[in-house]
Parts: sequence; structure tokens; C-alpha cells
Amino acid sequence: MPDGLKGLAINSATVRQMGLRDLIDACPRFGFDAVTPWRNQVQEMGVSAAARYFSDAGISVAGYCRAGLFAASTAGERRRIADDNRLAVDEAFALGAESLIILAGGLPGVGAGNPDRDLVKARGQVADGIAALLEHASGAGIRLAIEPLHPMYAADRCCINSLEQALDLCDALDPARSGLLGVAVDVYHLWWDPKLRAQIGRAGPDRLLGFHLSDWLVPTLDMLNDRGLMGDGVIDLPAIRGWIYDAGYRFRDEVEIFSERLWKLDGIEVLQQCAERCRVLVGQK
Amino acid sequence: MPDGLKGLAINSATVRQMGLRDLIDACPRFGFDAVTPWRNQVQEMGVSAAARYFSDAGISVAGYCRAGLFAASTAGERRRIADDNRLAVDEAFALGAESLIILAGGLPGVGAGNPDRDLVKARGQVADGIAALLEHASGAGIRLAIEPLHPMYAADRCCINSLEQALDLCDALDPARSGLLGVAVDVYHLWWDPKLRAQIGRAGPDRLLGFHLSDWLVPTLDMLNDRGLMGDGVIDLPAIRGWIYDAGYRFRDEVEIFSERLWKLDGIEVLQQCAERCRVLVGQK
Repeated sequence: MPDGLKGLAINSATVRQMGLRDLIDACPRFGFDAVTPWRNQVQEMGVSAAARYFSDAGISVAGYCRAGLFAASTAGERRRIADDNRLAVDEAFALGAESLIILAGGLPGVGAGNPDRDLVKARGQVADGIAALLEHASGAGIRLAIEPLHPMYAADRCCINSLEQALDLCDALDPARSGLLGVAVDVYHLWWDPKLRAQIGRAGPDRLLGFHLSDWLVPTLDMLNDRGLMGDGVIDLPAIRGWIYDAGYRFRDEVEIFSERLWKLDGIEVLQQCAERCRVLVGQK
Repeated sequence: MPDGLKGLAINSATVRQMGLRDLIDACPRFGFDAVTPWRNQVQEMGVSAAARYFSDAGISVAGYCRAGLFAASTAGERRRIADDNRLAVDEAFALGAESLIILAGGLPGVGAGNPDRDLVKARGQVADGIAALLEHASGAGIRLAIEPLHPMYAADRCCINSLEQALDLCDALDPARSGLLGVAVDVYHLWWDPKLRAQIGRAGPDRLLGFHLSDWLVPTLDMLNDRGLMGDGVIDLPAIRGWIYDAGYRFRDEVEIFSERLWKLDGIEVLQQCAERCRVLVGQK
């Protein structure tokens, strides 16, 4: 891995043009020692086959993407979601994942064109959902990493939209700071926040469970899939990375980029570019 | 104007397909008793001609769009910007505008492809710029309304991205709450914020200088120009409007919608739809 890194992870969505096996095989060549895979890929391979493949390759499972999507219109739907989230915990356990990424979900009914506009209620359902899942996850020793998403996704993807909000939730549900509930800090979602530095400090080593790298492009042509390689955008990555490690972050730098542009390239080329940009970034620290 | 409204303003950008004179002429028919015009329109007409046209029509000038765009790479550029901002204050005075909208601006160099990534520095320049302008504006009795913009505009348009951040700035620059420095609350930019209700309460009547209506569409196809008519999106407008008036807001509801869709329609039809949606909204209070 690039000098100065504790370890470097790649989120498999960054190179979704590659199969998970090919990605795992290619990792060592570029200095990636861990992957954050997505559930559909793991389920397609079979959970135990995937776990064995990772283990045989000597590649760790960093995060596991993902559980959550709590808010729903009916109690029956919420039960189904809770069941599926518990299954995700079990899969994360089988994979030996360092954490399970929690994506809160947005407003119920948005996809169906019949949105429930009550954000406060949706956020309450998220809190209840995480509280219930935390019990199951704690039994398995699986860390839950709440990932706040950019406010532009509040309606349709995730109604946890700042680090402060995520940490308030952590403090409410896990006041003892067990180490099993925390946050994934993704620079793309949080770079703009004037309170980011202070909230990273507040999180500290117990709550900092993930650190995701990409960049914010200007202009951004698509709200979901036009993220940039580190250095191509406007985010002060060395500064934020400094805050993260100063706060005692103990896990890996992870590259997670959703980009139609990168998905059109050869996956190997993308891995090479991601690793190179991380090398530059670490040199700037 | 629709029953139950203190007054209804239209931001001229909502119907940019109409000339300013035509808009002013059409206002009474739809219940708009005020317009927030943009500088280029006013300068094109001539400031005193525009002031006279408003006055003769019995239409008020609500906000005046806009001063700000403070962050710049060189001291010379910052001086030129400060001069232009003072001119905007003088124009707002000549128009009898209720407030001058302050748009902070983003990172210096972004437009030129050479961004200064130091957000903290840019925000410091914004604070210095507003402090200097406040002196000139106070002399003229012109209220400055800082408008926080959605975090998705932090790089290229406005690095003031939450109501809390804007109010912190107000408290730093105008601790006495003179009434001459405050905020414009635009639901499009702030609806997602879990602290919105509390911060509106904190702002109170001294700081609440504008309230802008539109809606957040899902999906949003363009980050700047795909805003929705009130009711077509996911924002809980009756709730937010309730918080605003409970906090003692003393000015008008203002419709401000940037929408390629609406700009393709006849301006008169857009005015009619905006007024109708406001009528529905007020009925929901």
C-alpha cells in the first residue's frame, strides 16, 4: 500500500465494471488491502464463498454496504426491513467485516410519487430502526457505521445529513461509547459543513469507523454519479484527512467514487488512478 | 392578495421570460403586492426610472437581488467587489427595498478552474466583506439579508450553507440585533436541516428578513434550475411556514423558483400558478 497509509480500502462501487472476484484479485497489485463490497455482489457469490475468497486472497473486508433504509409507510414494511437488516448483520459477521454501513433512507413514499413530507417522523423511524439493529449487531460484535449523506439526498436516499446529526443519534443510542456505533465520514457528503472539524473531534476514535475519499467536481453534472477522483475537485482533502487522523481514526482510508466517467474506463486503470491519487494525498499530509 | 397573507412577493427570476415592467404591471391581478427584482433588470431600466415605475404601480420592492460574492483571490478584486456592493446598497435605497439580499459567493478561482480549496479562508473573507458593507448599509438604513444556500452550492455560489452558520455570523457582526442584519430563509436551501426549526426560533423577528417559497422535486434533474412549484415536491411547507410566523416574521411570503420548465411557459400563466399555490399553502396553515 502507499507509504504512510495504515491500509487502503476500495469500495467496490468505484469499479462496478469489475466482478468482485476480479477486484479482489487485482487489489494487491495496487496496494489495496481491503474492499468494501455491496450486498448484491456478496449474495450473488454466496456469503461463505465470498468470505473464503477474501480470506484466501489475504484481503480484508472493510465496510459492508449496506443496511438501513428504515423509513417506511407501514408497520409490515418496517418489519420486513428490520428482518433484512438483521440478515445484513449476519452477513457482515460471516465476512469478518470491520463495520456495517448504515444508510438511513429518505422519506417514505418518495419513490412511489406519494411522499410523506414529515422529515421529523422519518428521522424518528431511523432512530428506532438503528436502536433495534444495534441490539442484534452488538450480540455479533458488528460495528454499525452511520453514514450521513449530503443534504441533496435528504428526500430520496438518506435523511441523516450532517455529522452532528449522526453523532447526536450515536450519543442517544450508545451513550457509553461502546465502539459498536459510530459514523462513516465521507468527504463528498460532508466537506461543506462549517462544523465538520469540530464534529470530527467530537466523534473521536470510538465513533470514527470509516473515512471515504472522492472529490466534489465543479460543475457537478449528475447529483449521484458525477463524483471525482481525489484532486480533481474542490475539497481540501489533506485538511480533512488531517482532522480525521488527529481525532484518532483507527481504520483505513477508503476510496468510494460513483462516476459514470470512471465506470466507462477499464477497472484496472481506475484502480491504478485511485491508488496514485491516494499516494499524492498522503504525501500532502 | 390571497387571504391570510400579509403580502405576497414574487422574485423576478421566477418569470425571467417577462420584462420587469410587464411583471410589475401584472402583479395586482394575481395578488402580488411586491417584487424582488435583480440588479441587471433595474440597471437596464435605470434605477430612478425603475423606482418611479414601482411607485406609480403601487408595487413594493421586497428584496433586492443581490450583493455579495465576496471571496476573491486578490486584494484588488476584493476592493472592486466592495465598491460594487456599496453601489448595490445605494440602488436598494433608491428603490426603497425592504432588504438587500446577500449571496456570499463560493471559493475563489472555481470558475477559472483554479480553486482555492480553503473554505475557512473564504468564509473569513465573507465575514469581512459583510462587516464592511454593514457599515455603509446602516448609514442608509438598508437591511442586509444573508441568504444561506444549499450545501450543493458551497463551491461555486455560496459558502454560507446553514441557517445556524448565517446566524452565527449575524451575532458576531451585529450583537445588538439592530434589525439591519439578518437572514433570508429559502425553503429550497434549508428544508433538510434537522436544526431548522430551532434556528428559525433563534433568529426571531429581528433577524428574519425574508421567506422564500418553492419546492424540492424528486428527482431533481438540474442542480440549479429544476426547482418546483409549491406542492409539487417533498418540502413540508405548511410546517416551515408555521415556524416562520411563530417566530415573529414581519415581512412577505416570496415566491422564488428557478425552473427551466416554468421559464418555457407564458409568464402570466406562471404568475397565476404561483398565486394559486400560495393560496393553497395559506389554507393549510
